[in-house]
Amino acid sequence: MTMLNARYTDPPFRITRMSHVVIRVTDLDASLAFYQSLAGLVLSRRDDGAAYLRGVEETSHHSLVLIEGDSPSCDAIGLRVFEERDLDLAETWFDGKGIHTEWTTRPGQDRTLLVRHPSGVPIELTARMERLPRPLTEYSARKGASVYRLDHVQILVPDVAAVGEALMAMGFRAAEIIRKAGTDTSIGMFLHRKNVPHDIVLSQGAGPRLHHFSYVVSDLQAMFKACDVAGEMGIGTEVERGPGRHGPGNSAFVYFRDPDGHRIENILPPMQIMDPDEPVAIWSSDQKEKIVPWGQPAPMRWREEASLFTGVPLGDEGDVARWSVS
Amino acid sequence: MTMLNARYTDPPFRITRMSHVVIRVTDLDASLAFYQSLAGLVLSRRDDGAAYLRGVEETSHHSLVLIEGDSPSCDAIGLRVFEERDLDLAETWFDGKGIHTEWTTRPGQDRTLLVRHPSGVPIELTARMERLPRPLTEYSARKGASVYRLDHVQILVPDVAAVGEALMAMGFRAAEIIRKAGTDTSIGMFLHRKNVPHDIVLSQGAGPRLHHFSYVVSDLQAMFKACDVAGEMGIGTEVERGPGRHGPGNSAFVYFRDPDGHRIENILPPMQIMDPDEPVAIWSSDQKEKIVPWGQPAPMRWREEASLFTGVPLGDEGDVARWSVS
Amino acid sequence: MTMLNARYTDPPFRITRMSHVVIRVTDLDASLAFYQSLAGLVLSRRDDGAAYLRGVEETSHHSLVLIEGDSPSCDAIGLRVFEERDLDLAETWFDGKGIHTEWTTRPGQDRTLLVRHPSGVPIELTARMERLPRPLTEYSARKGASVYRLDHVQILVPDVAAVGEALMAMGFRAAEIIRKAGTDTSIGMFLHRKNVPHDIVLSQGAGPRLHHFSYVVSDLQAMFKACDVAGEMGIGTEVERGPGRHGPGNSAFVYFRDPDGHRIENILPPMQIMDPDEPVAIWSSDQKEKIVPWGQPAPMRWREEASLFTGVPLGDEGDVARWSVS
Amino acid sequence: MTMLNARYTDPPFRITRMSHVVIRVTDLDASLAFYQSLAGLVLSRRDDGAAYLRGVEETSHHSLVLIEGDSPSCDAIGLRVFEERDLDLAETWFDGKGIHTEWTTRPGQDRTLLVRHPSGVPIELTARMERLPRPLTEYSARKGASVYRLDHVQILVPDVAAVGEALMAMGFRAAEIIRKAGTDTSIGMFLHRKNVPHDIVLSQGAGPRLHHFSYVVSDLQAMFKACDVAGEMGIGTEVERGPGRHGPGNSAFVYFRDPDGHRIENILPPMQIMDPDEPVAIWSSDQKEKIVPWGQPAPMRWREEASLFTGVPLGDEGDVARWSVS
Repeated sequence: MTMLNARYTDPPFRITRMSHVVIRVTDLDASLAFYQSLAGLVLSRRDDGAAYLRGVEETSHHSLVLIEGDSPSCDAIGLRVFEERDLDLAETWFDGKGIHTEWTTRPGQDRTLLVRHPSGVPIELTARMERLPRPLTEYSARKGASVYRLDHVQILVPDVAAVGEALMAMGFRAAEIIRKAGTDTSIGMFLHRKNVPHDIVLSQGAGPRLHHFSYVVSDLQAMFKACDVAGEMGIGTEVERGPGRHGPGNSAFVYFRDPDGHRIENILPPMQIMDPDEPVAIWSSDQKEKIVPWGQPAPMRWREEASLFTGVPLGDEGDVARWSVS
Repeated sequence: MTMLNARYTDPPFRITRMSHVVIRVTDLDASLAFYQSLAGLVLSRRDDGAAYLRGVEETSHHSLVLIEGDSPSCDAIGLRVFEERDLDLAETWFDGKGIHTEWTTRPGQDRTLLVRHPSGVPIELTARMERLPRPLTEYSARKGASVYRLDHVQILVPDVAAVGEALMAMGFRAAEIIRKAGTDTSIGMFLHRKNVPHDIVLSQGAGPRLHHFSYVVSDLQAMFKACDVAGEMGIGTEVERGPGRHGPGNSAFVYFRDPDGHRIENILPPMQIMDPDEPVAIWSSDQKEKIVPWGQPAPMRWREEASLFTGVPLGDEGDVARWSVS
Repeated sequence: MTMLNARYTDPPFRITRMSHVVIRVTDLDASLAFYQSLAGLVLSRRDDGAAYLRGVEETSHHSLVLIEGDSPSCDAIGLRVFEERDLDLAETWFDGKGIHTEWTTRPGQDRTLLVRHPSGVPIELTARMERLPRPLTEYSARKGASVYRLDHVQILVPDVAAVGEALMAMGFRAAEIIRKAGTDTSIGMFLHRKNVPHDIVLSQGAGPRLHHFSYVVSDLQAMFKACDVAGEMGIGTEVERGPGRHGPGNSAFVYFRDPDGHRIENILPPMQIMDPDEPVAIWSSDQKEKIVPWGQPAPMRWREEASLFTGVPLGDEGDVARWSVS
Repeated sequence: MTMLNARYTDPPFRITRMSHVVIRVTDLDASLAFYQSLAGLVLSRRDDGAAYLRGVEETSHHSLVLIEGDSPSCDAIGLRVFEERDLDLAETWFDGKGIHTEWTTRPGQDRTLLVRHPSGVPIELTARMERLPRPLTEYSARKGASVYRLDHVQILVPDVAAVGEALMAMGFRAAEIIRKAGTDTSIGMFLHRKNVPHDIVLSQGAGPRLHHFSYVVSDLQAMFKACDVAGEMGIGTEVERGPGRHGPGNSAFVYFRDPDGHRIENILPPMQIMDPDEPVAIWSSDQKEKIVPWGQPAPMRWREEASLFTGVPLGDEGDVARWSVS
């Protein structure tokens, strides 16, 4: 995998981690009730028609932005870069590839570069956010899962390898790859910059679509608390899958659907993967017993349903397949 | 419910708790590997063709007996009575009802009265077992779920109310009852003598059959450990249902199928129910969101499959429906 | 131990379990803040100068009563009997021993017999309390340790054996006994009626005094939550001992001091002990490594401080030492 | 703190994380029994007189090296750099400061640069180790705490600020600083390269000495398992401090002493700290209730005892205080 991960140690600009997710919701109050009571996210700011939330371990202004709109979708995923100058390096680099970028703004965020990525996934890059107190020791105020921090997003795309290459060109490293049995075709790819197996997970499917975003929780008790609160809220059927165990990444997980059908995962603190020579885990799609080591199969809606990106038609892969990573 | 539970405070003989389960297995070594490695039961004794196991909290010789045989089935469920003289009171009481009993023996058990209960369920009563050391502090030797103690059995019978009445006549108390929606028909009944909601759970279905037996584990971590060991053993698909939460009884649960298809449940330490005037919880079968507060539906095989009682044909309800409790 | 526990199977009246504790506190609001926010007890009723609390698993009106007074003390420990008629049997039995009893009342309790026990410990017997909803599934409202139910009290007395005998005469069974090394003198005794090792624990010390009352919590996470809330409330030094592990009873524990210095323990769900022939565990006081299997020694104040019983002078043992159990 | 952490984003060479610790032990078998049974470390290699161990999440050859010797001490702490060329950059950089380095070897490690750091702490730098399978899914083989991975070391030095500056010059970032009350003197400093608050913690004391090394465990249950195994092994008094909660870093912790008195900490997965503008937490030494939010005080031996570095006399601060970081 040396070639695959070539840009990890010398990236063109230094992405550090998944930073935030911006989703449209049709009823802001209903969504806030869900994300505060069940997930335990903390409100950083609320405007007319928008709310900004962070996990109990986060001091950055937001990792989840809810924007009220007519229909549910995902406006953008946000990546953090190390320093301001990495934004400029990024702008130049994308320019050189003929990829459209624009400077944009968002409350609580500093200078933000919006990338119209050829995969169709809108990506925001930022180096800084407003800093707020870490709510970690406000134990009495914790609710539901009291999620700690955003970990990763999973995105469905028709051509995993092509989008994966495009992201690796930006410095992502493949930690784990799922191949279609008997072929070299990648149908799943765990890409990371920070020291866990995943900042962005790609999975083969009609896309581009946001399958889920995933927050770290403290332990199994926090997962069960969220499930129990779901039951108490009368939305127990929205505990869509799990608690269970992933083979790839080894995460213990549970998935919930929010009032608009957006999907949030809770996972236990993931394993540490950070050495550039750490072996890439390769899985074959017929190793079902490894990929889902135990438990009931994922329900059909978990397999088929996902959130569109705002304004990006399903099936629009852009020109990623033709896009050179060199 | 006063009438229902009338015999609880003045039982004809003093059953104290679910004591043990005797099952036939087709490959004793395979079954032992399952119950020792995954469930973490401790071997008390092994004979040619039989093994006796106990939980890490149990000092009684066995709570699970495995007997090698040609086909899987359940030989008997065992109940503990307070003292020797309760066995004699039981014999007299069953005699008076015209119910056949006989004295039998089993290694590690003292004097044992086998009751050919009209429900078709073979019931063993005993007052004492050989005492062995409590393995609780042998932390290094713990395996899998390291189950603590047997809690209850669940039995499928066509006529829950009739079998329930028969058991209440023996002193059991109904802690929780599930009624067919819009009717007075009981389709589920949690019966107990010890101070948790269930020693024997009755559920409507083709019977009599043993649906599962249930062991208490320490916490969610122990449940997940058993699931992970199942995956490691290559039998992850035998994690049949859960981890999840029951509405009735409020237990967190997970179900496994053993190599012969017998079903073992792991539950967290159940709630305390022991006052005779503790309200009986009544559930209606259409309160799905209360009965299964969250999570994926139980798979079909969990609903349909169960273990026959040895030599008792399916559909044989005996004469329980006509049997008077007075 | 057959003789010791002789009255367990045929008690003179049927005590079933530790029921409640009544303590005097000097600032009811401060005490309520402590017991609601840190322990997670649920308020059942508040009058002028008194509050009644129950655990999240309890449907009985109260397991803890706080009464505002000039100085902290314990008014009574409460025991539950099986049925109303057991109260009358108790009255007669105590009368026969020349022990003073009187009928008393307390909000939320039915007919109550107050026993001026020769040990100096005021004991209330009751068969029924007002029933309230079980708060167990109000997950969002849980606070701190969200204690499940009262488990036991620990009482300091100068003569453990004498008080132990007096309690065994009332039907208690000794589950575990700690002997002064090299002697037959009991310096600790775990007495129970329900199916765990302890409803009343006796420990040698200047007395009679209430050392602590103990509530069951779900798991280690609940224990740590209470400790973390203590820190958040600025009373982290009142996490007096633990989390740790007891040898006798095998409970994981933590102790807190309330605003008046009353001591509350949190323990994990205790082991099941209920067969009359279950071996009595005998410990010798020099088996330090068994009695405190690991961790820092208990601090001096844990060893020396305890709550007086209201109006009962320290050192007043009554005539228990001369009182016959036959 | 901008200046303090100036070299974090542009380090002279790229240290990525704490890598390993090399300690001398007087009885290799006894030490292996401790680290395998209690901590749950996995043996990667055993030679005559040396053993190499890794956590269940680690694929690098070792994070702990035990070398049999006449007296206990710490030979070196090991840091990982991103790539081979960072070793050469490091050599040049230390040369330029007049700090002695030498190339050395250790089984399972690639090219290794040993730095005779002026603080007196021997530091090994390496870019690669032999890769071994990740034992994470060998659930049945887990023992004791089944520690996941090495997290950090804590070192006692007389002049925290000076050593801290020296380490920040190498690219470390201060995440948290404890100041002597009423002064600007740093008496504790949490320095990190990876995304948690600590790779190296400095604490004021007679030194240089290794106070402890710390491994991440999955949850409180794993911590308690290790404590219970300590009790089972008869070394319960070597559970020296905790389980408890640190204020700085917010880690839940427990400390054990090994057969030679070396100290190993277990902590829960630490919080994520990785943005360069993440605020530095400043604590004052008189904020006792913040620094130790709850629980019994650390025992004297935890405060006073630590492991010498091999061949480095106590009190030898080298010339770090005079050593320029510019």
